[in-house]
Amino acid sequence: MRVEIVAVGTELLLGQIADTNSAWLGEQLALGGVDSHFHQAVGDNQARIVLALRTALARSDAVITCGGLGPTQDDITRESIAQVMNVELERDEALVERIRAMFSSRRRAMPENNLRQADVPRGATIIEQTRGTAPGLVCPLGNKVVYAVPGVPHEMQEMFVRAILPDLRRRMADAGEEAVIKSRVIRTWGASESGLAEALADQVEELDHRVFDDRSTLTMAFLASGIEGIKVRITARAMTEALADRLLAEEEQQVREVLAERLGDVVFGVDDEAMEHAIAARLIDRKLTLGLAESLTGGLIGARLVNVPGSSQWFRGCVVAYDSAVKHAILGVPPGPVVSSSAAEAMASGARNALGSDVGLGITGVAGPDEQDGERPGTVFVAIATPDGPVLNRQLYLPGDRDRVRQFSAISALDLLRRTLDGGPPS
Amino acid sequence: MRVEIVAVGTELLLGQIADTNSAWLGEQLALGGVDSHFHQAVGDNQARIVLALRTALARSDAVITCGGLGPTQDDITRESIAQVMNVELERDEALVERIRAMFSSRRRAMPENNLRQADVPRGATIIEQTRGTAPGLVCPLGNKVVYAVPGVPHEMQEMFVRAILPDLRRRMADAGEEAVIKSRVIRTWGASESGLAEALADQVEELDHRVFDDRSTLTMAFLASGIEGIKVRITARAMTEALADRLLAEEEQQVREVLAERLGDVVFGVDDEAMEHAIAARLIDRKLTLGLAESLTGGLIGARLVNVPGSSQWFRGCVVAYDSAVKHAILGVPPGPVVSSSAAEAMASGARNALGSDVGLGITGVAGPDEQDGERPGTVFVAIATPDGPVLNRQLYLPGDRDRVRQFSAISALDLLRRTLDGGPPS
Repeated sequence: MRVEIVAVGTELLLGQIADTNSAWLGEQLALGGVDSHFHQAVGDNQARIVLALRTALARSDAVITCGGLGPTQDDITRESIAQVMNVELERDEALVERIRAMFSSRRRAMPENNLRQADVPRGATIIEQTRGTAPGLVCPLGNKVVYAVPGVPHEMQEMFVRAILPDLRRRMADAGEEAVIKSRVIRTWGASESGLAEALADQVEELDHRVFDDRSTLTMAFLASGIEGIKVRITARAMTEALADRLLAEEEQQVREVLAERLGDVVFGVDDEAMEHAIAARLIDRKLTLGLAESLTGGLIGARLVNVPGSSQWFRGCVVAYDSAVKHAILGVPPGPVVSSSAAEAMASGARNALGSDVGLGITGVAGPDEQDGERPGTVFVAIATPDGPVLNRQLYLPGDRDRVRQFSAISALDLLRRTLDGGPPS
Repeated sequence: MRVEIVAVGTELLLGQIADTNSAWLGEQLALGGVDSHFHQAVGDNQARIVLALRTALARSDAVITCGGLGPTQDDITRESIAQVMNVELERDEALVERIRAMFSSRRRAMPENNLRQADVPRGATIIEQTRGTAPGLVCPLGNKVVYAVPGVPHEMQEMFVRAILPDLRRRMADAGEEAVIKSRVIRTWGASESGLAEALADQVEELDHRVFDDRSTLTMAFLASGIEGIKVRITARAMTEALADRLLAEEEQQVREVLAERLGDVVFGVDDEAMEHAIAARLIDRKLTLGLAESLTGGLIGARLVNVPGSSQWFRGCVVAYDSAVKHAILGVPPGPVVSSSAAEAMASGARNALGSDVGLGITGVAGPDEQDGERPGTVFVAIATPDGPVLNRQLYLPGDRDRVRQFSAISALDLLRRTLDGGPPS
C-alpha cells in the first residue's frame, strides 16, 4: 500500500509556511507501516489540483490531500476531487445542521459560505469533524482512495489517527500487507559522511543481500545534518513492533562496534540526543560541575548546555570574555596574544577558579572576517582543565563564514569535552 | 517560466526533517518573479526520482532538484538525471582535483567514493561549489532545464542565488517575460499580528484598489516569525528595478509613519536586520560599550550580539551566572532570592563593574519546568544600568516551554535595551 500526500495551498509554494503537515503525515505513515514514495504540494487552483491528484493516483494506491477544505472561494479541494471522481457535489443536510449548530452554540452569525463545507462528492463518505467545521472525506476511486483532511494541523492529525490510519491498515490487512516500520538514528561527530559510508560499507552490503524468512527488511542511510554531525539511520520493517525493535537494537549494536573499531569514539547519541545531552549524562555520572570561558563563541556553548533540563545540577556558568581586558581581569589570562593555546589554557583554568567548577573549558579563536593576533579566520584554540592531570589543549581549523566558524567551534569544543570525560583525550 | 521543485531524500518522506529547502526556494522564486505551481518530494530510489523528474518536466519549464548529490551510494540524483537525459555520466578531472585539494587543505584523508561527486551527465555544466564538495549541475533537456543543488541549506542557497536565479532570469528575458519583483520586510517587535493588521487596514485597502498606469503592483502581507516578531512584507512588481525600489521606499515610509503614530516604537529594522543589529547601531552611534549578566538564557544574548561583525568594538563580554554562588561572587549580587527585580538590578550593575562597560544588562528568571524562588516558569526580570540615571527594571511573563521562554527572554531584553538607548524606557 503506497500512499501519496498532496498538500494544497498557494502559501506552501510561496514558502510563506513550511510544509510541516506532510512531514508529520510521512512520519505517522512510516510508523504505521505504510509506504510513501512521493509528496506533492500544489496551489489553490482547480486545474492544477486535479493534475496533482491524477499524477498521484497513477503512481500510488491512496492519496491524502491536506488543506483547501475551508469555507472561502479559494478552498477548492472538494470540487477538484469531485472532478477527478467524475461526480457531482451534493449538499449533505445533516452536515448543514451540524455546522449551523456549531455557530449558534458559539453565539456567532454564520456566513452563508460556510455551507460549502457540507458539500460532498457523490459516493464519498464523511470523516466527522470534532474540532472545527470542515469535515474530512473518504473518496473511493475503483480500488484506490483519496482522503481529504483540513490543513489546520491539530484537526488534520486528529482525523488521521481516528479515521485514516485505521482505514489504511484495514486495506493493508485485506491485501496481506500489514507491517510496522521503525527507525533509529545513530548520531556521530568527527567523521565525514564518506568516511562513515566506507567504514560501514560491509554492513550496507550485507543488509542489501540479507533475506529474512518473514519478509522483514532492514536498511541503512547516511544523513548530513550541517553542524550537528552525520547521522546513520537504520530502518526496520517487520510484522510486529517487538520484532522491529529487536532488529534495530541488534543492528545498532553492530554499527556501534564497527564504528568504534574503525573510527574510534564518534557516536555521541541516538535519535533526539544532541551533543549537550551527551555532556550532561557524563557530568552527572561522574558527579562533576562545569564552568566555561568563551571568547569567539560569545555564549553559544553556554546557551546549548542550558537546553538540557536540570542543567543547574552541573552547569555553574560561563565568562564570555570578548574583550581582552575581561580575559585578563576575570579569568587571569596573562598578557600576550589572546588567540593562542596558552590563552585557551589560562581561560580553562580561569573558568574553574572564577566559577568554582570541577571542570573548566576555555575557547578562543578568530571567527572572521579579519585576522587577529596573526591567525587567520577559522583558527580556534580549545582547552579543558580537569581536577586531575594537566590542561588538555587542541588547535582547530574550521571552515565557513563567521557564523559557521562559531557554530562549529561550539560543537567541536563540546565533542572534545565529551571524549575527555570518557577517559582521556582523543589521539 | 514555471519552475518545479523536486526535493530528494527518504528522510523527507519519513518526516525526519521538514522540507524547509522547498519553502525557501519557493519564496525566492516568487521574489524573483518566477512562477512555481508544484513541489514534489521523493525518496532515494532511482526509478522514483526518474518518475518524479519526468512528471515535473511534463508540467513545468524548469526543475530544481535539491539533495542526493553527496558521496555515498544512496546519493543518486546524478544518475537519475543522466537517465532522464539519456546520457552517460562522465568523470570531470578538474572536479577531481578540486575535491582532492579540499580534503588536503583540511588535512584529512579523502575516501575514494568522494570522487562520485565529480561525475557529470554528458552535456551538463557545473555550478561550482564554494562551500562543500558536491558541485551543482545545469542539465539542459531540449528547451527545458534541470538544475541540481545539494540538500545542505547554505550550499543550496548560495548556488541558487549565484547561478540558478540569474540563469532563470536570462531565460525569462529571452522569452520576454521579465518583470522585477522586489520585497522589503519591515520588522517589528511588541505588536501582535492582528494589531498590526488593524493599524494598517487603511493602507492594505488603499493598495487593493490603487491602479498603476504601467501595470505595476504593490501588495502587503503580515508574517509571524516566531520569536523574531511580526514582519510586514511589501512586494512591488514593476518593469524596472528602479521603479520597484521607488514604490517600496514610498510605501515603507508610510507604513513606518502609521505604525509610529498608532503603536509607538515597534519597528526595529528592515529585511535581514535582526534585533542585535539594531542594538549595535545604537551603541556605536552613542559610543557606548555593553556588558551582560545572564542567568536563565545561559549565554544566548551574548551569542546573538557576536553575530554582528565588528561587535568587538562595543561588546565587552558576559557573565553567565547560572549558579547562585557565581551571581554573588563575580557580580556582587547580595544574598536573597536570585529570581527577583533586585537581583536583576544587582546583575546589571555587577556586569558594568565586572566587565568595565558603560551599559550593563542583567536578566534572571525561571525557564521551567519547575518553579524557582516561588516564581512560576516564564517569570523573567530584566534590568539595564546606564552611566546616567537609575537602573531600569522590568518584569515579564513569557509563554511557552523552556526553550521558548529563553528565546523570548533574549529578544525581549534586547528590545528593552533598544528602546532605552533610543531615549528612555517605554511607558
